[in-house]
Amino acid sequence: MPSAEIIAIGSELLTPQRTDTNSLWLTECLNELGVEVKLKTVVGDDPLRLREAIADAMTRSEIVITTGGLGPTEDDVTRSVAAESVGRQLIHSPELEIEIRDKFSRMKREMPERNRKQAFLIDGSSPLPNSFGTAPGMLLEVDGKFLVVLPGPPKELKPMFIDHVIPRLSIIARGTVITKRVLKVSGMGESAIDEAISGIYRSYQSVDTSILFNKCEVEVHLTAKGSTLEECTATTDSLVSEIRNVLGIALFAENGEEMEEVVARLLIESSASVAVAESCTGGLVAMRLTEVPGSSAFFNEGVIAYANAAKSSYLNVPADLIESKGAVSAEVAEAMARGMLIRSGADHAVSVTGIAGPSGGSEEKPVGTVFLGYASKDQVRNVSLRIPGDRFLIRWRTSQAALDLLRRQILRAKENDYRISSP
Amino acid sequence: MPSAEIIAIGSELLTPQRTDTNSLWLTECLNELGVEVKLKTVVGDDPLRLREAIADAMTRSEIVITTGGLGPTEDDVTRSVAAESVGRQLIHSPELEIEIRDKFSRMKREMPERNRKQAFLIDGSSPLPNSFGTAPGMLLEVDGKFLVVLPGPPKELKPMFIDHVIPRLSIIARGTVITKRVLKVSGMGESAIDEAISGIYRSYQSVDTSILFNKCEVEVHLTAKGSTLEECTATTDSLVSEIRNVLGIALFAENGEEMEEVVARLLIESSASVAVAESCTGGLVAMRLTEVPGSSAFFNEGVIAYANAAKSSYLNVPADLIESKGAVSAEVAEAMARGMLIRSGADHAVSVTGIAGPSGGSEEKPVGTVFLGYASKDQVRNVSLRIPGDRFLIRWRTSQAALDLLRRQILRAKENDYRISSP
Repeated sequence: MPSAEIIAIGSELLTPQRTDTNSLWLTECLNELGVEVKLKTVVGDDPLRLREAIADAMTRSEIVITTGGLGPTEDDVTRSVAAESVGRQLIHSPELEIEIRDKFSRMKREMPERNRKQAFLIDGSSPLPNSFGTAPGMLLEVDGKFLVVLPGPPKELKPMFIDHVIPRLSIIARGTVITKRVLKVSGMGESAIDEAISGIYRSYQSVDTSILFNKCEVEVHLTAKGSTLEECTATTDSLVSEIRNVLGIALFAENGEEMEEVVARLLIESSASVAVAESCTGGLVAMRLTEVPGSSAFFNEGVIAYANAAKSSYLNVPADLIESKGAVSAEVAEAMARGMLIRSGADHAVSVTGIAGPSGGSEEKPVGTVFLGYASKDQVRNVSLRIPGDRFLIRWRTSQAALDLLRRQILRAKENDYRISSP
Repeated sequence: MPSAEIIAIGSELLTPQRTDTNSLWLTECLNELGVEVKLKTVVGDDPLRLREAIADAMTRSEIVITTGGLGPTEDDVTRSVAAESVGRQLIHSPELEIEIRDKFSRMKREMPERNRKQAFLIDGSSPLPNSFGTAPGMLLEVDGKFLVVLPGPPKELKPMFIDHVIPRLSIIARGTVITKRVLKVSGMGESAIDEAISGIYRSYQSVDTSILFNKCEVEVHLTAKGSTLEECTATTDSLVSEIRNVLGIALFAENGEEMEEVVARLLIESSASVAVAESCTGGLVAMRLTEVPGSSAFFNEGVIAYANAAKSSYLNVPADLIESKGAVSAEVAEAMARGMLIRSGADHAVSVTGIAGPSGGSEEKPVGTVFLGYASKDQVRNVSLRIPGDRFLIRWRTSQAALDLLRRQILRAKENDYRISSP
């Protein structure tokens, strides 16, 4: 299998404010081609280090892709440095210059003199047309290895790569196919999952399985290698089916879906609606549900009842219940869900009350204490949680737990319907 | 000024699902120390390439920092490969092994045999204590250069770096001081900002100014170099003050603050409260306001009125107004804000109604059509917008515009109060 390296160029990518996302997208495309990305480098607009980075990369990898640094300004040095790195000249292309001038005149502007440098190509390279900008890319073969020079802006890079690079690389990268699939699990830790499924995945030699913890969920990454796409897919499908049998309801996504997408699908499938009443998450649960396109099919309304008075006025939570049990309590969570269900007429209602911190915690109810409520016409229940992390993580994990509670309730209701309707 | 390189280790960092964020944080810390980060590399759990990456880095940079790969499993290869790269042995430390065993016994567990590898150190290195995990880091000096080996999990890496690495590096990194400051601007494009301020920043030779577009705001990054912190701060302060005079109210943050933090500060300073009524943003505006710690000082309640019926029942928007003008209209936005103000008793109310897509657009009101409403006891007004982007970006940019509208209204109210109370 050929291996590739990506070199992201630009001083701004070395600052804490910016991060290189092109390489994530490129890696995904390259993997699909059966090319493994072995190394990524980020280098500033520094000719010396850039020359070294490209030259080093060309000695060890079959495919080297650079992104960025093709603009007209002085710190855009990629074109000349890439030429130097492979010991070639930059050659002026009159055809390219005419094309660039044409692009400007179509925008009713004259080409600035400094843009003329974009009409120079590394000797022997093929220009890669840029449909969304003025700087063409370049593809060069040197001793059976490939140097691909791409512009930095994603809207220019992506179509250029898809239209002009993939067709050329796929010829080189035949042989091995790589597929990736991400499963997501809720309510179990990494080691419990590993204990449950390691016996299964170990018997799949051609699939590389890794278990990773993310913000608020555990992911199981399955990377299959094979000689055809069909082979990879069949092996992975079989492994997923065995994992599903063991993890059951804890396995919530089989193709990397977000929790809110899974919940949205279940709601739409069961033609049901949900309303949410949030305190400490302040709109995050509703925001995630409405992030899903078409959410108006299952979501009509929600209330952010941050203050105690709002819990009473919107959700009819008795003031004396808040007084006696505390705003952060199982009883208030249930009352919020019940109140939301009644006032909305939705099929499901979910509520959240908790202490996201950094202040507001007590010995009895420290920061991270969260109660979730759930109500439907058949039942009202609550879940109590103690969530680790800072304010951001506590809120995010709480929203995840609330959506997961909803997911499990919908699935159970479905199961009951099935049991009732079965003979 | 010493230069540093960061090597992020772990095959998962080469997948599209994961990205290395440690290096962003480390770069920020290093810059504050006056150390420039010249190169970042991401390398998988591949001993050959990792050895090469560390060895190469040690030849060209004064400080080389690796992150990740110190865990107990087989693919955690950093410890042994780092030792090889600098031609040293790994030496077992009985003291460290006792410490690690103690950590496990405090968790009421026996140390698994495989964790024993975490008790090995590169010969001649100092162990860096890990307060939040079992794997210690290492700091090694080789021929006047420094190799710093850190664990991957941010919650382990950050305190280790602050407590045990910064004090040692700051001794080396004397000489040049670098400071960074980020300004944020709303309601103006990159080129309009550049036109307005380029005459100013060009006259500051020791400050590097760059203008960058982010999700929904334009940032002005000021990087000052000088021989003392005081010098950098004074120069930057003077530049910021000139920029402030030119940009006025469009300059909303002078120290990289988020829009919601700026709004929260203004609300707290004026002892005012806000309530929000959201349709297409589905809770995002409220979520952002309540992301700020202490938000209960200014935020009591919000309504997500997604369906038309909810706009009427919660916010008293007349059904015939929705019928005649459309749910996405300036009139309904104003009515939502007015309704929210009245029912909440807040000092300010903000509302959002729009079409986030991907469906729901028409020729007259395409996807991205958004109306914001604002109400206070003195006035009701609306803003109409046509926002580009996909569903995610439209929602995010809408929330930003809503918070900016609130910010501008608070500032105007303040100015009026001042005018009225001035002689």
